[in-house]
Formats: sequence, C-alpha cells, structure tokens
Amino acid sequence: MDKKLIYMDNAATTKTSPKVLEAMLPYFSELYGNPSSIYDFAGKSKEAIMKARQQIADVLGAKREEIYFTAGGSESDNWALKATFEALKDKGNHIITTKIEHHAILHTAEYLEKERGAKITYLNVDENGFVRPEDVEKAITPETILISVMMANNEIGTIEPIREIGEIAKKHGILFHTDAVQAFGQIPIHVDEMHIDMLSSSGHKINGPKGIGFLYIRKGVKIRSFVHGGAQERKRRAGTENVPGIVGYGEAAMLAAESMEERTKTEIAVRDHLIERLLSEIPYSKLNGDRTTRLPNNINVSFQFIEGESMLLMLDRFGVCASSGSACTSGSLDPSHVLMAIGLPHEIAHGSLRLTISQETTMEDADFVVDKLKDIVANLRSMSPLYEDFVKKQG
Amino acid sequence: MDKKLIYMDNAATTKTSPKVLEAMLPYFSELYGNPSSIYDFAGKSKEAIMKARQQIADVLGAKREEIYFTAGGSESDNWALKATFEALKDKGNHIITTKIEHHAILHTAEYLEKERGAKITYLNVDENGFVRPEDVEKAITPETILISVMMANNEIGTIEPIREIGEIAKKHGILFHTDAVQAFGQIPIHVDEMHIDMLSSSGHKINGPKGIGFLYIRKGVKIRSFVHGGAQERKRRAGTENVPGIVGYGEAAMLAAESMEERTKTEIAVRDHLIERLLSEIPYSKLNGDRTTRLPNNINVSFQFIEGESMLLMLDRFGVCASSGSACTSGSLDPSHVLMAIGLPHEIAHGSLRLTISQETTMEDADFVVDKLKDIVANLRSMSPLYEDFVKKQG
Repeated sequence: MDKKLIYMDNAATTKTSPKVLEAMLPYFSELYGNPSSIYDFAGKSKEAIMKARQQIADVLGAKREEIYFTAGGSESDNWALKATFEALKDKGNHIITTKIEHHAILHTAEYLEKERGAKITYLNVDENGFVRPEDVEKAITPETILISVMMANNEIGTIEPIREIGEIAKKHGILFHTDAVQAFGQIPIHVDEMHIDMLSSSGHKINGPKGIGFLYIRKGVKIRSFVHGGAQERKRRAGTENVPGIVGYGEAAMLAAESMEERTKTEIAVRDHLIERLLSEIPYSKLNGDRTTRLPNNINVSFQFIEGESMLLMLDRFGVCASSGSACTSGSLDPSHVLMAIGLPHEIAHGSLRLTISQETTMEDADFVVDKLKDIVANLRSMSPLYEDFVKKQG
Repeated sequence: MDKKLIYMDNAATTKTSPKVLEAMLPYFSELYGNPSSIYDFAGKSKEAIMKARQQIADVLGAKREEIYFTAGGSESDNWALKATFEALKDKGNHIITTKIEHHAILHTAEYLEKERGAKITYLNVDENGFVRPEDVEKAITPETILISVMMANNEIGTIEPIREIGEIAKKHGILFHTDAVQAFGQIPIHVDEMHIDMLSSSGHKINGPKGIGFLYIRKGVKIRSFVHGGAQERKRRAGTENVPGIVGYGEAAMLAAESMEERTKTEIAVRDHLIERLLSEIPYSKLNGDRTTRLPNNINVSFQFIEGESMLLMLDRFGVCASSGSACTSGSLDPSHVLMAIGLPHEIAHGSLRLTISQETTMEDADFVVDKLKDIVANLRSMSPLYEDFVKKQG
C-alpha cells in the first residue's frame, strides 16, 4: 500500500534534517582524523568539534567549555546523577526529583537508592503535571546535594517552572540539574537566568542524529567522570569523539534556535487546532498536561473506554505514526507513570494518545488524523464492554 | 601545500568505508523511526538493528542476542568492569588485569579500587608485551570475580594468548573479559573456542563510524546495567539506539571479516617491509612488540636519542599521519605506560613511533615514509645532546 507517512511521534525521535546530514558527511570518509591526534589532518576534526560546542553553547547562553558531549540524553542523565552523587556523597546523600521524570532519571535514582545509599525524594505534581516550587523547597534537608527536575515532560508536554526551582536551588546552595531532552531547541533556555548547573540534551530529538547528546556542566561544578578512560572532553568523558555526530548536533542546535520563533508559531497553530477538534468532536476525551504551558508540538489526549495500543495500530494502517506514551517503555503493559502521577485512573491512562508534530505537519495532516481518529475511537468503543456498561447506566 | 595524505594512524581511527556510509545513509532522513515504537515505519529500524547484530555475532561465533550496542569501546570497557563488579561484589572483590591495558580499562579499574572497594592485580608482561598465562593463574584468589586481558595491544600490536587465559578463567569459574578494540576485524576471534565471556569492540577502528561500539555478553553472565533508563537492548543499556551507527557497524564488521584473509596478507607484507627497512637502515632503532605475533597493521619502533613528538611533527610536514602511542592520551608528557611495562627506559620510550597501516597503504607509501624518516631521525639526532654524548663516548 502506497500510503503517505504522517509522522506524529517527534518526541520519540525526529528525522535528521538534510542540512544536518550534509554538514556531517565530510567527517565520515574524508576528514576522519582522531581529534586527539597531533597532525594537521586531525586538527580539522578538532576544529569541527569546537565549532559545534560553540553552536550549542550559544543556544544556552553558556560557555563553550561547559558543553560535554555524550552518547545521548540517557548517558547525560546517568552522568549528572551518579557522578554528582559520587563527588558530593561526603556532603550528603539526598537527591530531590519528581515522579514524572524520564526513566533515565528515575531508574538512575533507583539505582543510587538501592546500590549506593542515596535517599531520593520523588515529588508529586499537580493535575496538569506541574511541579510546585514550594514542594521543592520543603523537601530540602541539610543532606540535599542535588535537585533534578525536567524542563518539559516527554509525555504530556508540560513545561516546568524551571527558573523558580533554579532560584530555590541557588538560594540553598544546592546543585540543580534539568533533563531538557524534550525542551532543548523547542523553547528558549538560558542557563544563567534559570540558575541551571547541569542540563541534559539529545541530538535526535531536534532533527540531529541519533547517538549523540551533551551534558552542560556549569564551570566550577564538582562532578566525577561517568565513562573512565582517555583524556577526551577535558578528561571528563572518555572515548573517541563521535565527530560526525557532534558536527550534526551543533548544526541541528543552531538550526533549531534560528527557526524557533517561526517554527513554534506554526506548530502551536496546528497543535491547538488538533486539541480543539479532538476535544470537541470526540466525546469523553480529555487533554493531559496544561492547555498553554506546554511544548509547542505536544498533544496528549485520553479517550475513555478504549485501549491506546489498539488505537495506535489502527492509526498505523493509515500511515499515522503516534504513541501512547514514551517510546522507551514500549512493550510494557503498565500504564504511564506520568499519567498516573497527574491522577488519571488506570483505565483512562490506558486510552491515551500522544501526538507530537513537527514543522512539517500541515493542517491537512491534522484534519486527516482527527477524521480517522473519530472513526477509530467510535469503532473501538463499539467493541468495548466498558463503553457498553457506561451507555446502559446513562440509560 | 597540496601534499598527499599518507595515513598511518589506523589504530587511532579509520576512514569510514564508503560502502559502510552508503549502508547508513537511509537511516538518517528516510527510515528514521525509533526502533522502540510499535508502528510499521519503526519496524524498519528494528529490522536494521537485528541484521547488524547478526552480522557482528557471525564474526564472533556468538548469538545475536549476546551483542549489546554501546557508544564505543570505552563505554563497553566501563560497563564490563563496573557492572560485573556490582553484580558479583558479594562473591568477591578481586579483579585481575594487566599493566598494558587501554586507559578505558586501567582508569576504570583505578576507579573501582578507589571508590568501590575493589582489589586489582595489574599483571606484568614480558619484554615483547606478552601476558604469561601462568601469571594469570597464580594471581587468582578465592575473591577473584573477573579477569580482563586485552586481545591485542593498541600501541605495540602484541596479540595476547587469549585462548590459554580463557581456559584458565573457565577452569576456575571466573568471568573472562577481553578488550578487543584493536583485534576485532583484524584477527579471527571465536568466543566459544577462546572461552570469552565478555568482549569490547569499537566501530571506528574497523572502517565503521565513530560513536558506536558493542559489548558481547555471553548468555547467562550476570551483569548489571551501566546506563540506566529505557528498556532498550533487552533492558540492559538504556538510550535510543543509534540506528545509522549500528547499521554501519554491522556492515563494517561483515566487510572486515570477508576481506580479512586477503587484506591482512597485504598489510603484513607492507608491515614487514617497513619493519625491515626501518631496523636495517636506521641505526639504534628497535622494534617494540613481538616480531610475528602482532597485529597485521602495527609497526612500533623506538629510535634512540630523539623525541617522538618532534618526529611526528616533521612527518606531518610530508603529509604522514603517525603516532607516538595512543591518541587517547595525547597531550600527556608521560611516556607510554605500555613501553614502560615492556621495560623500555624513559629516554628510549620517548623516541617511539607507531605506524598503523591499512589495506590502502602501498609499498610506495611505505618507502616514502622510510626515506623521510631516515632524514628526520638523522636530522633530529644531529641536534640531540644525547646523541652527541653517545658519539663522543664511542670515540
């Protein structure tokens, strides 16, 4: 079947932009030198990395030497938590985070709790997924060494009050890390204004390549290495640099920043159109996450009485790529921990759909998806015993 | 200056083969789906990964599900040591390794020693860089949980008696890890015949892309995760898979295995020609590493009375890319730990040159490098007070 691909899963991963790929290409088979080598030829690789580091630093209001390349968002999150804990464990063992973090944070926190003697506070969020800054402040103890709160949630798109939390962390002299994997390139970030000490990001979420990420580490922050070995990344992260990946990441960051204003305006228009049509035309539906303080490209709606997975499979027949939550936990039958944390009952969480659009998504795509979804939801409900019971009760 | 590039630093990194790049290209901007997603489109990414895993498993005589992708050799080494230690620390805390390992092993071992209560034995090697299997056996205590010996040394090319060491490990019921970053794709490896439980490798050393590696983990080996988070790599290594990198790595592994016999025959001829001319035509020179049990592409020679760095800079003027040791430690003024371990005095270790050739290196390239080196060494010696003293003494 020669169906059109309607890709609405940009929170899972994005297309590498052709411009990004073009920037990367010379570094595979032509300028392939190892940046650590001392001859001229390798200097070209070194310069390319320096340029990318600067491109990324510029987007954050950071200094070039505060950007450390990793293999992706998960490694950055692991590094931030584990190596901060190691560096500061003599000062205290308490870390504050939230119940709606990505598993790269949650499972790392659980590891530190079980294996390394850390104490972790997992903060609740409100019904829109907001962390309350006053809860952060209340959770601080003399043992607190790190606060880690994500900048925007990967499932429901809620943008957290990072500046306020950063101010609290700063006031108490506690390190503040934010997982900005979904936010970087999508919303303006300034590490100084937001009092961020560490920030994680991933290339493939912003039309850059897969397999590359960075951890921003403010100058002066005490942190150990996570990957030990060679002297790369100012002796903080061992391993031959992924030069093409780094080059592509720098380019993608620059392009995302340049296009941000106009791009997100288009995305917000399509997003809001999708939300309005879905909520008004499909009964018993509910938006998850805040209506306005959300990522420009995120739509997350629960449809009562149905299973999210069935919805996805039926959308797939029409070439629509969507998700019921995080791609990283696909295959799990548990309902999303994020939807649980905002208070959704199991059965409603199970009927949730995440659409994450891009600048390439048109109003026509949006309308196509809504039209199909209306049929799909009606169809699935017609087979749902839950829905049948409900209709009977309504009389 | 339009000089020809003579790249003799293939142990530092290699050119991504055009065939490998071609295999990768569709996975950037066309088949970019997240392998964890459930729609058809993402299935193409999943299939591509499965194919690459099989390609690599075939080279090792391993099963597909025993190959775990990482960001590179350093991550694989870190994972093997740290997560084995965590899984087995109740059984014992002793790890046996050698003095000539790559820093990804050595610094990880030091970390485990300093921070996690491990006891590490660093075995000596003989004057050719061989680990003695009997030394391995003698070092075993009831507390020993892991033996990690590299398959071939990255500086001097010596190929270790891995099968014998594997047999000893097996006999004593101790896990055996080998860092095969320099050996994979260069020499035949069979994980069962060699009794290997874990094996590290890196894509960019075999004409694959940078930023990708794998850890082979024999089925049944107890090991924890190193990067915590999503459920990728059968829940053992979190992070969205680097699909293009994985595809390229699989292709590179297959190509390396297919071409191994013929390619290494050519390389050995050029290698031996280089060694013979260098040793016979440049006085006071010495081969480091074993004459025959060495990697097909490795030449490591010490020239008395001179500085390796100056030699490299002068070779660079002629477009010759070479190294004085590992690229990962460039910038360090300490002499190579490997050359120290084989008993070279400081001043001779400092005058060492590593040439690592490829199938593209011709006899003409080799002769060009020897001719230039003769001049360079003579020139540097003419400025060397050490050489002047030596000549005076000789009378």
